[in-house]
Amino acid sequence: MQIHQQQIQIREQKRGFHLITSEIVRSVPQIGSIKTGMCQVFIQHTSASLSINENADPTVRKDFEMFFNKTVPENDPDYLHDDEGSDDMPAHLKAALLGCSVMIPIRNGRLALGTWQGIYLCEHRNYGGNRNLMITAWGE
Amino acid sequence: MQIHQQQIQIREQKRGFHLITSEIVRSVPQIGSIKTGMCQVFIQHTSASLSINENADPTVRKDFEMFFNKTVPENDPDYLHDDEGSDDMPAHLKAALLGCSVMIPIRNGRLALGTWQGIYLCEHRNYGGNRNLMITAWGE
Amino acid sequence: MQIHQQQIQIREQKRGFHLITSEIVRSVPQIGSIKTGMCQVFIQHTSASLSINENADPTVRKDFEMFFNKTVPENDPDYLHDDEGSDDMPAHLKAALLGCSVMIPIRNGRLALGTWQGIYLCEHRNYGGNRNLMITAWGE
Repeated sequence: MQIHQQQIQIREQKRGFHLITSEIVRSVPQIGSIKTGMCQVFIQHTSASLSINENADPTVRKDFEMFFNKTVPENDPDYLHDDEGSDDMPAHLKAALLGCSVMIPIRNGRLALGTWQGIYLCEHRNYGGNRNLMITAWGE
Repeated sequence: MQIHQQQIQIREQKRGFHLITSEIVRSVPQIGSIKTGMCQVFIQHTSASLSINENADPTVRKDFEMFFNKTVPENDPDYLHDDEGSDDMPAHLKAALLGCSVMIPIRNGRLALGTWQGIYLCEHRNYGGNRNLMITAWGE
Repeated sequence: MQIHQQQIQIREQKRGFHLITSEIVRSVPQIGSIKTGMCQVFIQHTSASLSINENADPTVRKDFEMFFNKTVPENDPDYLHDDEGSDDMPAHLKAALLGCSVMIPIRNGRLALGTWQGIYLCEHRNYGGNRNLMITAWGE
């Protein structure tokens, strides 16, 4: 069994949901040599997250931003952790709801995503800066 | 280390939360030959999801359906993506909240689930059709 | 490739969000001998969960408890599963929103967590008892 790991940086994205499937695939060309395996993508931050969802219509990603802003409100007077701005504590909560990693099977040298699946970088801060991802792929 | 991968199809389920632990276990009999390992189940769709929760009382699964319907409302006038029916955008959001994969340790040839844990297929569409899952197990 | 698995028990925690990174690291010293790999932590319960989030300011963890209590209310008259107390069905739902496992890359013998990331045990019951975790690490 082989294993490969690559750290990459995604340059600062604006707040919202962004498709990064092609960046991931490009970063670990060794996936092409794995017949059966797995690929994990991990984000090393607590105010941005990763998810897998619809890869075609951009309005889906706009609706994600709208929904999570409604569900995790800013300026809730009950927040205790509010020193870093009104988007900070909601960003931590959104990141926990969505998760900090995605994991995708590899089959015949490709990520076995469904037709409509793409990998989202979910940026929950207004100015989140660059984001570090660790990509690990293994199999045989 | 050995690795096994199996694609299976779950025939159309009605909207709601369904226990599929036994289908998963039956589909990858090679788990029985792994002493220490991992099993990942991945759903190749964006409007259905996978989760692990209570495997005994069916009212738990009914309460899941009720809760997610309340938390992710249909017909929110703020949705932009609404061409495919009122259950479509909520299905994408529910899928992101629950996730498209579960991962379970293997110990002594069995999934090391807790006593009360079962694998749920969460069908978020009214008519979602058949669902494709990819099951990958590895270990030694 | 090597693989190691360790079952540990976390003694009863009070309801809320608790940092357990150091317990995890201590339990699987073999991580130190893995240059490139993965570590999964799995909780064998349906009313407690695992997450990764901010490891510094304790008010973040208090805000998590507040937010999830608001988002998943107790005593919703629509719950059918209410025999085991008002905190029971909400605990199942919170566990599904947060997830029963976390998975972290290993790099140069250490968990490749970001600077601000820690592993949370999320106890959703008032009296949840001890919690069993299965930790699996593999790589080369």
